[in-house]
Amino acid sequence: MIREVAQLTIDPAKEADFLAAVEKAVPIFQAAEGCKAMRLEKVIETPGMYRLIVLWETLEAHTVTFRESQGFQDWRALAGPFFAETPSVDHSEAVVEGFGG
Amino acid sequence: MIREVAQLTIDPAKEADFLAAVEKAVPIFQAAEGCKAMRLEKVIETPGMYRLIVLWETLEAHTVTFRESQGFQDWRALAGPFFAETPSVDHSEAVVEGFGG
Repeated sequence: MIREVAQLTIDPAKEADFLAAVEKAVPIFQAAEGCKAMRLEKVIETPGMYRLIVLWETLEAHTVTFRESQGFQDWRALAGPFFAETPSVDHSEAVVEGFGG
Repeated sequence: MIREVAQLTIDPAKEADFLAAVEKAVPIFQAAEGCKAMRLEKVIETPGMYRLIVLWETLEAHTVTFRESQGFQDWRALAGPFFAETPSVDHSEAVVEGFGG
């Protein structure tokens, strides 16, 4: 499983509208090929900083299949207007499973 | 639930020993008060970059109870020698639950 982490910076004054837009985008990720989970986290220490966490079956499911899909265009149309900076995106995978996961 | 994200930078040449040290530290987190889950992720795009993800019942369970505990000393004794930079730590919480979580 590949974990996409997209760090998003939003004007804190627009938080309520941004959260509503992300809620509206949930079905886009649910319908995306190879997408297993999605949620939005808010960073406590930094106002306006959020992390979109998306689990993909493979790296290519995100970087190729999703990014070339209509779903990506729809996601960006919903959330993009709130981005105060270009999102910073990377991917990770578990190397120590630990516990409770 | 509060998600601690500690970004760790390690000399890539020491990866195997670092992963063994983190494996050895799993029981420390399992025994920590208010700790619900722990795992280590490796960032695909950046050699030597890892993220320790720990779920806590409350922010204080990490920032007060754990950091003042022997467990924190034991964790740092195991993993600290591998840190090439001071870890960058923050906390987040889910604001859009999405799906699959």
